[in-house]
Parts: sequence; C-alpha cells; structure tokens
Amino acid sequence: MIKVGVAGYGVIGQRLADGVAAQKDMELVGVADVAPTLSVRALKEKGMPYDLYNSLPDNQKLFDEAGIPISGTLEDLVQRVDIMLDASPGGIGAKNKAIYEKYNKKAIFQGGESNSVADVFFHGYANYEKGVGHQFLKLTSCNTTGLIRAVDCLDREVGIEKVAITIIRRVADPGDYHRGLTNALQVDKAPSHQALDLMTIMPHVDATGILVHTPVTHGHIITVLATPKKDISKEQLIELFSKHPRIRVVKLADGFQGNASLFRYARDLGNPRGDMYEIALFEESIVKSGKDIMFAINIPQEAVVIPENMDAIRAAMEMQTDRLEGVAETNKYLGLGKWIQK
Amino acid sequence: MIKVGVAGYGVIGQRLADGVAAQKDMELVGVADVAPTLSVRALKEKGMPYDLYNSLPDNQKLFDEAGIPISGTLEDLVQRVDIMLDASPGGIGAKNKAIYEKYNKKAIFQGGESNSVADVFFHGYANYEKGVGHQFLKLTSCNTTGLIRAVDCLDREVGIEKVAITIIRRVADPGDYHRGLTNALQVDKAPSHQALDLMTIMPHVDATGILVHTPVTHGHIITVLATPKKDISKEQLIELFSKHPRIRVVKLADGFQGNASLFRYARDLGNPRGDMYEIALFEESIVKSGKDIMFAINIPQEAVVIPENMDAIRAAMEMQTDRLEGVAETNKYLGLGKWIQK
Amino acid sequence: MIKVGVAGYGVIGQRLADGVAAQKDMELVGVADVAPTLSVRALKEKGMPYDLYNSLPDNQKLFDEAGIPISGTLEDLVQRVDIMLDASPGGIGAKNKAIYEKYNKKAIFQGGESNSVADVFFHGYANYEKGVGHQFLKLTSCNTTGLIRAVDCLDREVGIEKVAITIIRRVADPGDYHRGLTNALQVDKAPSHQALDLMTIMPHVDATGILVHTPVTHGHIITVLATPKKDISKEQLIELFSKHPRIRVVKLADGFQGNASLFRYARDLGNPRGDMYEIALFEESIVKSGKDIMFAINIPQEAVVIPENMDAIRAAMEMQTDRLEGVAETNKYLGLGKWIQK
Amino acid sequence: MIKVGVAGYGVIGQRLADGVAAQKDMELVGVADVAPTLSVRALKEKGMPYDLYNSLPDNQKLFDEAGIPISGTLEDLVQRVDIMLDASPGGIGAKNKAIYEKYNKKAIFQGGESNSVADVFFHGYANYEKGVGHQFLKLTSCNTTGLIRAVDCLDREVGIEKVAITIIRRVADPGDYHRGLTNALQVDKAPSHQALDLMTIMPHVDATGILVHTPVTHGHIITVLATPKKDISKEQLIELFSKHPRIRVVKLADGFQGNASLFRYARDLGNPRGDMYEIALFEESIVKSGKDIMFAINIPQEAVVIPENMDAIRAAMEMQTDRLEGVAETNKYLGLGKWIQK
Repeated sequence: MIKVGVAGYGVIGQRLADGVAAQKDMELVGVADVAPTLSVRALKEKGMPYDLYNSLPDNQKLFDEAGIPISGTLEDLVQRVDIMLDASPGGIGAKNKAIYEKYNKKAIFQGGESNSVADVFFHGYANYEKGVGHQFLKLTSCNTTGLIRAVDCLDREVGIEKVAITIIRRVADPGDYHRGLTNALQVDKAPSHQALDLMTIMPHVDATGILVHTPVTHGHIITVLATPKKDISKEQLIELFSKHPRIRVVKLADGFQGNASLFRYARDLGNPRGDMYEIALFEESIVKSGKDIMFAINIPQEAVVIPENMDAIRAAMEMQTDRLEGVAETNKYLGLGKWIQK
Repeated sequence: MIKVGVAGYGVIGQRLADGVAAQKDMELVGVADVAPTLSVRALKEKGMPYDLYNSLPDNQKLFDEAGIPISGTLEDLVQRVDIMLDASPGGIGAKNKAIYEKYNKKAIFQGGESNSVADVFFHGYANYEKGVGHQFLKLTSCNTTGLIRAVDCLDREVGIEKVAITIIRRVADPGDYHRGLTNALQVDKAPSHQALDLMTIMPHVDATGILVHTPVTHGHIITVLATPKKDISKEQLIELFSKHPRIRVVKLADGFQGNASLFRYARDLGNPRGDMYEIALFEESIVKSGKDIMFAINIPQEAVVIPENMDAIRAAMEMQTDRLEGVAETNKYLGLGKWIQK
Repeated sequence: MIKVGVAGYGVIGQRLADGVAAQKDMELVGVADVAPTLSVRALKEKGMPYDLYNSLPDNQKLFDEAGIPISGTLEDLVQRVDIMLDASPGGIGAKNKAIYEKYNKKAIFQGGESNSVADVFFHGYANYEKGVGHQFLKLTSCNTTGLIRAVDCLDREVGIEKVAITIIRRVADPGDYHRGLTNALQVDKAPSHQALDLMTIMPHVDATGILVHTPVTHGHIITVLATPKKDISKEQLIELFSKHPRIRVVKLADGFQGNASLFRYARDLGNPRGDMYEIALFEESIVKSGKDIMFAINIPQEAVVIPENMDAIRAAMEMQTDRLEGVAETNKYLGLGKWIQK
Repeated sequence: MIKVGVAGYGVIGQRLADGVAAQKDMELVGVADVAPTLSVRALKEKGMPYDLYNSLPDNQKLFDEAGIPISGTLEDLVQRVDIMLDASPGGIGAKNKAIYEKYNKKAIFQGGESNSVADVFFHGYANYEKGVGHQFLKLTSCNTTGLIRAVDCLDREVGIEKVAITIIRRVADPGDYHRGLTNALQVDKAPSHQALDLMTIMPHVDATGILVHTPVTHGHIITVLATPKKDISKEQLIELFSKHPRIRVVKLADGFQGNASLFRYARDLGNPRGDMYEIALFEESIVKSGKDIMFAINIPQEAVVIPENMDAIRAAMEMQTDRLEGVAETNKYLGLGKWIQK
C-alpha cells in the first residue's frame, strides 16, 4: 500500500484526499492545513475520517479553540508517507518542497505552482510515461487537464496539427468570498497559459487561445477549434469521445444546457459534493468547417484534476509503468467509464 | 411500515424521496414524474434505487427511448401507498388530488398549491397537533417553513407580539435555466405572502414583510425583527436557538459569511447533493433595539421543507400524535440535532 | 429631408430615433409604441421631444391614464414618412409590413425578423450597394453587425478564407426583468446563426461558430479566429483596425478590461444612455498562430446597430449610392471616427 | 462665485465635478487625480471640459504618455479655490487635509473617511444648520444619505421613535473589476454602520439594522421599518414622500420593478451617465403593521450624495444659512423636484 499525504485541505485538497481514499492500493495517511477553515470544521463534524496535521504550528491555538484534534505537524506527516499531494495555495508548494526534499519523499504539485518546482509537467493520458519514477511532478491546471483529455483523444486517433481555444472561465468556486466578478466579462492578455501549457505537454501541436472570465461558479466552458491531419466525421467524433472514460458526451436535447445542468446532474447522481471527474462534451455543439472540428466542453474545475493526480501517484511511485494500465487503475477505483454503453 | 409515494421527482420531490427512504418506520414505494428529466436520468444512472411511475402516460415513448424502466402509472402508485407526498409543479397537485380522493388516500401538498387544496396548513414545530389524522395537509413554503422555525422557537420561550421580515430571495435553484435574473434586484408587492402565511399558522402574531429577489442560487436570507413580550438577552437567544435541532447558529468569524458558505459547508460535510435541512442563524447578526430582536437567517430552499414533510406524514398517519414526539422521530432519522453540543 | 418614423420605442427603437434625430439630412417624424412603457414614460418626462404614435389603438386608455399625448396611430405615422425603421419585437415587423406595403413606403427591419421579410439582408460596410433603392431591407443582428465590421475590414485588406467564432453572449439588457440567467452558462446548438448570417452577407467566407450565454448585461464578447489569404502582422492589424471609424482599438493596460469597462467609459464620455456605437477590439487579445489571426471584440448590444440602420436608410432612399459616401455621412453625423489619431 | 475644486476624479469625483458645474453660483476650478484612469482618459477625449491637476507628481510621466494636459499639482489647485470636495479613496482625504489646512481652505469629505476628519457629520436635509460656517464637513455615505432623506422627511411630519433597516447592498459599481461577488450573499456584522450613522445625525431616533451584500451593480435597496409617534395613513405617506424633491415615488405597476428599472429609466431620461440623484420609493412596498410603517427604497449609489455635497458647500461657505433655502438652491440647479406634480 502506497502511503499518501495531502498538504492543503481546500477545494482541491479535500477532493484529492477523497480520491486517494478511494484507491484500494493506496492509504491516505492524513491531510494538513494551516487553520480551522470551514472545510476543516466540516472534517471535525464528520468525526475526523482523516487525520489532520497542522502546517502552521503558530496556529495551534486556533485548532485547540475550535476543538479540532491534530495528529502532528506537516513535517510529521511527510515522514509518515511515501508521497505527498501538495494542494497548497500557489507558491506555498515551492516552499513545502524543501520539507519533501529533506525527507527524500516524492511529491505531486498542482497547476498553481511554477513549472520549475517539478521535474515533469504531467498529464495522465497525454504523457504518463514521462512521469514514471520521477520525484517531483506538476499537474496541469483544471482547464488544461480537461482540454488535453479531449485534444489527446483526438490526436491519438487522427493527429492534430493545431488548436485554437476560447476559455469561458468561471471566476470563483461556490463558496468563494475572496474573489468574484459582478456583471462583468474580463479579457486576459493572450495567448492564454492553457494554450501554452498544452504545447508543453503536446509539443507537436500548435495552440493558441483567449481566456475570458465570467461571473459564474459551476464550471468553465471551452470552445475548441482543432485542425486534424485526417478527416473525421461528426458521427465518428461522437463515438470516439463517448468511449473515453473521462469524457461524457451529453445532449442539449436531454436537458444538459450548460455548466449548471452538469452540476445539478452530479448532485442528483449522489456524487459526493456534487462533484464530477469527467469533462462533458456537448454533442450539439460539434460542428465542422472543412476538415476543422469545433466543439464545446465543460470543465468541472473543483474535481477534474483528481483522476490525473491519482495517475501521477501511480507514475511517480511506479505502481504502473504503462500509461493505459495506470489510468485504468485510477478509472476503476473512481468509477470512471462504467456508464459507457458497451 | 407506512407506505409512501412521491409525485413529482424534481428539486423537492427527489429530496422528499430521500427523506422518506431515511425514515426507518416508512417505506418508499416509488416516485412519479412526467418525463425523462435530468433527475430521472440520474435515477437511471444510479441503477433505479427508487421505482419510477409515469404521471403522463402519453410520454411513455420518451421514457422508453431513454431506456428508463417504468413501474406503472401515477394511479398505480397511489393504489400501492398509504399516503402521497405531492411535489408536482404548483397547480398540478390540485389536479392529482382527484386521484387521491378516488382511492381514499391521504396526501401532503407543498407550498406552491393554494391553501384550499388541504384541510390544514401545516408546520411540524408550530402546529403539529392540527394535522393529526387529517387527510390532506399543505406545507408552508421554504421561506415560511424556515422562518416559522425561528419565530415559533422564540414565541414558545418569550411570546412574540409582532414580526417584520425582509426576505432576500434567491431567484433560481442551481441548474435552473427556465428562470433567472441578471444584475437586478426585484421588489415584490408587499406584504409578502410569507408574512401572511406566518399569521395563518401563528394567528396570535402580527406579521408584515417585504420580499426582494436577488440573482443568486444558494439560499434565501431573511432578516427578522421580532417584538417579544418578555425581554431576552442576546446570550439567552444564542443559547435558545443553539438547542433547536433544525437551527444551526453559525459565526461569521468561523467563515460562515453567507448563503454560499453554508452551501459549501454542506458539500464538505458530505451531505447528499450538498443539502442542508437546517436553517442557519448568523450569530453576529443578532442585535437588539430596546426589547426588539433583529437577526438574519439562511434558508436552504432545496431541502429545508423535508423535515416538516416527514412530520406531516407522521401527523396525518397518526404515527405520533404528540408534537414533540413526532418531530423527534423525524429528527432522529434525518440526523438533525446530533451536532448540538450537550 | 428624408422623413423617417420608428415603430417600437424599446431598447433599439429609442436609439434609432436618437440616431435619426442626429442626421442633419433626415427628419424624425415620430415614434410608435403599444403601451406606456418606462421608455415612453421617460419620453413624457423629457417633454415629448419626439411625437408618439399608438401602435395598438385598444391601449389608448392606458396612454390617457398615464397622461401621455398621442399624435395618431401607427398607420397615421406611416403615411407621414418616406421610410420606417421597424424595431418592433421579433415577428411584429412582418405584420407591420402590410401597412408599409399598403402605403407603398420603404422600411428597414431588424435582426429579429426572419430574412424573408426583406428584399436584402444588409450591412452598411459589407454590402451597401445591394441595398440601394430597395423597398425592404433587413439589418443583421447586433453580434453579426459588429462581427462583420471586423471581418469585412480584414477581408478588404488581406482576403479572408474562413472564420471560426465563439460568442460569449450577454443574456439580458440592463433593466430587463423578463429574461435572465443566474450563475449559469448556456450552450446553444451550433453553428450559431451569426456564423450563418455572416456567410449570407459575405458568401465567399467559410464561417462557423458556437454561442454561449453568460449572465451579464453590458456587451457581448466574440473571439474571432480568421484565416487570411495574405499574411498580416500584428502591428499592421492594429493599424488597420485603428483606422476604422466604427472600431475602437483599446488596451487592457489602459484599464479596458472587458465589457463593463467599456460601458463605464461610454458613461464617462457623456454619451447619451452610456451608449457606444463602436465595437471595441482588445489589443492584447490579438494573437497569431501561423497565418491565422485570433482576437476578441466587444459588441455593445444596445447601440451597435444604429449606424448600419442609418446606412440602410441612405441606401434604400438612394441618398448616397456609393458605399463609402453613405457610411461617411452616417459617421459624420454620429461623430464616429473623430477620435482617430491622424 | 464660490470657487470649488475636486480631489479624486473617480465614480464620485466625476459626479461632484458635474454637480458643481451645474451650480450657477459656483465655479469649478478643476479636478485632481493620481493617474490616467479611464475617467481621466474620457475627460481628455471630451476635450478637457475641466482642468486636470496631478495629485501624485511622481506619475507625471504617465499623464504625459497618455497625452493628457495637466494644469498643476493638487497643491496648486487648493490655492486657487475657496473650498475642496475631497472624493479620494478612503483614508487619502485625511492626508489631503494637511494641504487644506496649510492654505486655510475649507473642505468637504465623503463617507469613506473617518468621522474625526471633520468638524461636523453632515446631511443637507437633516442637519444643514450644523454645517454652517464650518471648515471641515463630512458627508454621510450613499446608503445613509438616501435613508436619512426618507427618515427625516417622516420625522419632520410625524416624529420617528425608532427604525430598523435591512440594507440589500449592491456590491460593486458598473465597471468595477477590483471587487465583486459571484452567486453569493454576504452578511455583515450587525448593527450596520448606516444605522449608527443615522443616530449620529438624528440622535433622537433609535436605529438598528443588518446589511447583506448582493451581486448586483445598479443600486442598493433598503427596507425601512419605522415606528412613528403619530399615526399616518398609507395615502398620507405617499403624498408626503411625493412632495420631497429628492424622493421619487414609483410604482411597480408602471414598470419600476427594482434597481435595474430605475437605472434604465435614468438612461432613457437622458441623464448624464444614466445617473439619478433621487432615491426611489416603491409605492406598492408600503405596508403598515399597527402604527409601524414599512417600505423599500432604492439608493443610486453613484450619484445620490451629489445634492447633499452641494448643500455642504452652501453651508460651509455660508452661501445660504437657512436649511430650506440652501437645499432649494441645490435642487434648482440640479433640476430636482421639477417633475413633482403640483
């Protein structure tokens, strides 16, 4: 059993912990955070299913006042695991790295850290092999992770020359009060980092894109224009995407009208927190212009990176050294793809 | 075991079904709806934990096309139960009533129906005894249900002469595409129906109020100004509310900043769909002006009425004829109040 | 002096009336509407600068009760003008057409009508000559009008083979209560009508696109990916667009962060209603991928079509038969392009 | 002619400058700001109707690069005026005060400064006489200014014992990108400062209240529960408020549904920037509970304080020493009350 710890018990950290707990070949040793946040208070109300470690010893008093039991410091946690998933706020992961190095432990960093923190910039489906055995991997961000799922899927089938993306970015997560937009769209300097990151992971593809922030919380939507080397029909595309365990092809006609429908559906499914690991691809959004393919996907920003993080543990720890074997184990334990109609 | 059916498997109907399924002294026979909505599709993807009945036989083809198994018509369901929970869209319940009468079955209607549909306008905590043994009960709406919890709690302690409320109403549920406001507040004609409904349930209290719609989805907020007969200190108020199994006293200082924090907390708790049955009362919002008490509460519109619906079954079916015994059974099966610090 | 009437005094109709009033070679005879709406009440409070006609004689009593003076019926207005601008709600224009035909008057319809209502589908810059002398013209919708300005500008310089657009659509206008989205993005069936409409106006260009609705009110944003026949540098592009009297090139670095900044800027300029006739092009959004050009534009949905409507009057009435002469007269009277740095 | 300068050319500063420019007995000498903001760029595009002074000499290069002519420093401006309106961001006014003292000039500060910056906490209608002849006045904030208009109006007619308010606060101004909320309501610690400020201005009234932030931009809405000493009927209330030059009584039935309707109406009126100086009171929101009066008002946050600032200049400079004469002059030049039906 690979022993795993999680640093940062926020939006991503909680879901990483749940993801690890679901992998039958991993053991979640504990999670660490700096203060009795709402998520930590919820952990306590649930009866501490996960041990909590304190990343900021100066704050011990705050945990005590809130009656939250602490199992040690972040440094203690690191010593008890084989690998850390670091979901600290951007920039903190780079600081934590010193602790991981001190105890010669492996670690997976999230998209908010700079690429230099890691040996490999990693995506489970696109470049699994590159991560095998490395000490430090960095995952792509939520948008890039979801986007690459679709582009890699296409690329392996028909070869992709170039993509141009428009990211309609949700500006905050549900529950965020520290950031937000009100009745405004905000344009970012182009090209978006997601396009650049895609080229780092898939260097044979030309990519560019524009990102626009929108005042919503339940998922980004990306439109993708892809130029394939080989022509592919709309029907073949639907079939191709439908077989991918981390992509759901959904229909507007069935009621999947946008990001909020998908969030509602995930809640109605009974998924914990109303989360969805899969990106969704709107079937009626697929259009062709000559050979070019255009379509829209939904990125559930809170949970989408969890499967690729599990893949990263598998690669770094050499639990599976083959790409398809690695992602298949993750998929099995997260229940991904079981809804695919055979 | 009391056999229960649910008509209408939408936002409320789904949660009613889950609520009944959690009551160990009730059996959920099935749920009925008119079409393969997203919620019905989710039911199918979950493997049909509840039997589905078709409320609109003309739509049988739609269910067949979606591969959704049907266990009969609404009329079939009615014959197999002791009591129906009717969560159909407003006005449909009144039509369904003919079926309930035909088979001499009891039924509980929701706030969207007109009062005339029922024998008793019901609230579990405030007038349980009035519902005992009656054939048709109508529940108060989500805002009124939550509001009365707080006002009834106060009233039983210190006597309430009058209340004035301001309802800051969420305009849509998460996932709604058929209604919504964008960057606008909308004022309703006063007095709001919630104030009038409160007086129907609690006729000894004078109530008035104004409702303003706001473009958010995760819960209404109501400010309540209450004039008690007997003075009560802020500390006593906090203690009083803290002991109520369906009210959570939360602190801004702990991170509970508003409706979105509560939704996030419920998701982090692992509550199905991120639901919360309890209203929340913001401790730092409590102020006094002379004897008058003012405070703000959060109403989680999707789930708040579920406990009182369970109470209504208990009253109508005479499962418990005493108010406190009835609500206690509901609370026990829904896990309400177990977080209260003894 | 060409005599002009406006049918429908709503969001577009008011601005058409103001636009006509600003053309020194046109006379605004009056405007018509069906009820004492807020805009009609504002007209009264301003002292009736425009004569108002009643499009729905049954509603005369409502106008009387509101104390609003009426100068006749829509049919009276039609008889007193040379040409009508019809800004009635979609579908009503087609009905009004019978009146225009009865009196053998010309008319300009808006984007909400079906194409069959008119002889020519018109855009001032792109196909002015096609409208010259025709009785019935239909304008492109707001998004298409703004989009074609940019694409036509490029096409005349370097030739455009194909475009792929993503429309991030504002879902309501400021002040709308009859429609809106709350915390949701909504995907439309692709290809969007704007892409199809572009091909109708510019049949030598291949166009496709996806439209996503967003809960904001102050302007659509469109990302455009265009494949030119001839390479053009980013600097040349900026220079080209900067010289277009109906396009403003703005910089994120100067504070133009998105649609809300542009609305604020127009208000600060003192433009009536805070309107802007120009589309804006965000300079830092321009990226190239090979020869392909990608950029983002802002479409001020309330006012953007006004200049092209003035062009349409000029074309239909043969006031100018040359494209550049026609649009230049419109630009002069609307003050467009005077801010271009020579 | 009283010579006036404005420090800070932001949302409030611009409107103060326009307000002063409209007063025929005042001369606007110039406005000062720290950088070439969008509002300053708009001033330039309009041809510099107001002279601009540089409040931050280190930024002179930025103004030069933007081609914006500068007439001197803030200190230069102060020397050329009789009185300054300081609309700098909160806290900066207190620093600027040293310059005003150095040259022995009077100044009016806005609600964002601490009360200690001024000799008198001022409201034109409620305590005009207290400001007469003083060097430093501080205005109430936008919500408090509008609220006191209504409460003072009532108080002078029937005497007000106490008020309880709920402020449904717009969280950002149109064009704001530096703050915002997305799909969240946020509760503030009670009592709100507006209730406390009201008691400072009207010490004979007991006031309390709760403030909730909402994700909208076009105006706050406040519900007011007031306990009068003397009974007053709803009809008398409507008549009383209708005669106040800074209060508009509007009807839901006429289409005034909320803050967005009022913003639209102001735009349709042709008011510069779509501004409105008046608060609006929704007629159908007025309800009585015993003697208590409850109603909802709209506060147009960007412009509402302008009239009271003009009053403050009049009081401080002793242009009028009588309350009703002072406010009447302001009203005359701003066109307030001319729409009142005699």
